[in-house]
Amino acid sequence: MSRHAIENGSLIPETEARVPVTLREVQSNFSVYEALRVVRRHIVHLDDHLARLEYSASQIGLVLPHCPWQEWIDRLIEADGLVDATMRILVYGGPTPMVFITWQELLSYPDDYYRKGVAVTTYHGERFLPTCKTSNLLLSYLALEDAHRRNAFEALLVDRNGKVLEGTRSNFYMLDGRKLLTAPDELVLGGVTRISVLRAARELGYEVVKEAPSLDDLSKGMTMFISSTSMAAMPVSNVDGRTAECDIEAVLSFTRLVRQWECD
Amino acid sequence: MSRHAIENGSLIPETEARVPVTLREVQSNFSVYEALRVVRRHIVHLDDHLARLEYSASQIGLVLPHCPWQEWIDRLIEADGLVDATMRILVYGGPTPMVFITWQELLSYPDDYYRKGVAVTTYHGERFLPTCKTSNLLLSYLALEDAHRRNAFEALLVDRNGKVLEGTRSNFYMLDGRKLLTAPDELVLGGVTRISVLRAARELGYEVVKEAPSLDDLSKGMTMFISSTSMAAMPVSNVDGRTAECDIEAVLSFTRLVRQWECD
Repeated sequence: MSRHAIENGSLIPETEARVPVTLREVQSNFSVYEALRVVRRHIVHLDDHLARLEYSASQIGLVLPHCPWQEWIDRLIEADGLVDATMRILVYGGPTPMVFITWQELLSYPDDYYRKGVAVTTYHGERFLPTCKTSNLLLSYLALEDAHRRNAFEALLVDRNGKVLEGTRSNFYMLDGRKLLTAPDELVLGGVTRISVLRAARELGYEVVKEAPSLDDLSKGMTMFISSTSMAAMPVSNVDGRTAECDIEAVLSFTRLVRQWECD
Repeated sequence: MSRHAIENGSLIPETEARVPVTLREVQSNFSVYEALRVVRRHIVHLDDHLARLEYSASQIGLVLPHCPWQEWIDRLIEADGLVDATMRILVYGGPTPMVFITWQELLSYPDDYYRKGVAVTTYHGERFLPTCKTSNLLLSYLALEDAHRRNAFEALLVDRNGKVLEGTRSNFYMLDGRKLLTAPDELVLGGVTRISVLRAARELGYEVVKEAPSLDDLSKGMTMFISSTSMAAMPVSNVDGRTAECDIEAVLSFTRLVRQWECD
C-alpha cells in the first residue's frame, strides 16, 4: 500500500508532499516543524508539541494557520492503518502557508544503545534561535554528518564559551552526584522529552541545575545522557573517541519514567 | 505561455519544480544556490557564479553532480524565449542530488534608487558559514522582513563585535576619503559583483581596505553603498531612519563600470 500525507487538511499520496523551489519561503526555509511519536494509535504529548510549534512560529513571525491537528493526524493514522509511527508536522509560512503531516516508521533504537550507551562527538557551532524548532538546520546536519563519519550516534554542539549546550536532535545532561546539570532554557530547544526528564529528575531526587557543562567537564567521569522524543534518555559512553564512565542504571530510571508518562 | 524550469537536465513545467518534504536534505536545507543575470541572452559572469557554487558546495561537503550548465541554461532561455532574466541555480545534495534552474523577470530597480539612494536598516545577527551561498537563509529572511516593515530596501547584518559586515543579499562598502572600506573576505559572501566593485575601486583610484565599518561609523557622514548581481552599486541615503550623506556621483561611477564589465 502506498503511503499518504496531509497537505493543508487534504489527504494526498506521500509522493505529492512537495514544495515549489520557486517560492521565497521555501528558498529561505521560513518554516517550523515538530516530530511526534504515535504509539498504539495514541499521539504522545500532542499538546506539548503544538505549544512548541506555536512558540517557534511566533518567534520568527510565522502566522500559523488554524488547523484541527488531532483530526488531521487521526485521518492519516486511519488512512495508512498506522499503529506506531513517527509523525512530522511541517509548516511553511508566508502569504499562503503550507502545512504538511508526514510519517515514517517509529524511530526506535536497539536495546544495546540503552544498556551500553552510545558514542557522541563534539562540534563547535551555535544554533540560530536555539529555542525554536525551525527548518534552519544546516549546522545540525553538518554536525551529525561529522558524527556519523566518526562512527558516533549524535553530535553535541559547543558554543563560543566552550559550553556543551545540546545535541543536534537531543538535549544534553550530566549527573554530578545528586545534581542534574543541563543548559539554561534560553540557550537550547525546549525539548518535549526534556520536560519529562526534568520532572523525572525531581522524582528521582536530583537537584536540577540549569548550567551547561563545559567541554572540560566531559572527561571528569560523570554520567552523561541525551534525550529526545524518539530516544527518551540515552546514556553516553564515549565522547570524541574516549570512553566515558556512565551509570547506565541511573539513566535507565529516567527512560522508564519518560516512557511511562507517554501513556498517561 | 507557461514557464519552464530545468530539473537534472530535463526541461519541465516550472510548476513541477518541487522537492519532497520527506527528504532529509530538503528538511535540513542541505543546499547551495546562485542567482545570475541574463542580459540580451548573455549569461553574465557565468564562470564566477559556477566557481562560487563549487566553493559553497565544497565547504559543506555537498558533492556537486557534473552538469553542463551553459547548455542547460541555454536550453531554458531557448524554451521560454528569454532575452533578459534573473536565473536561479539550486542544488540539493545527498545520495540523489537534485539540480534546478528556474527564472524570473530580470530583477531591476527604479532609476530613482540610484539617483537618490535607498534606505537600509541594521540587524544583529551572523550568517552561518558566511562565505558560502547556502539555503540556510532564515536570518537573512527575518532581517529583510524587518527592513521592509520599516520601509527600508535592505538590512545590514551587524556581528557580535558591532561590525557591519554585509546586507542580506548584498555586500556593503563605505568611502572614507580615497579609501574604500569593506569587510574582510572571510566574514562575508564573496559576491560576484563585489569582485567588480573592488576592481572598479582600484580603477577609480581608491585604496581597498578590508576592514568592516562599525555601527558607529554609519553616522559619520561617509558615503555608503551596497552591491549585488541585481543592484550593481546602490547608494545608501538613510540608515535606521536617519538621513545619511551620500556622494551619489561617486557610487554611480561604480555602477557604470560594473555594468560595463558585464558585457565583456
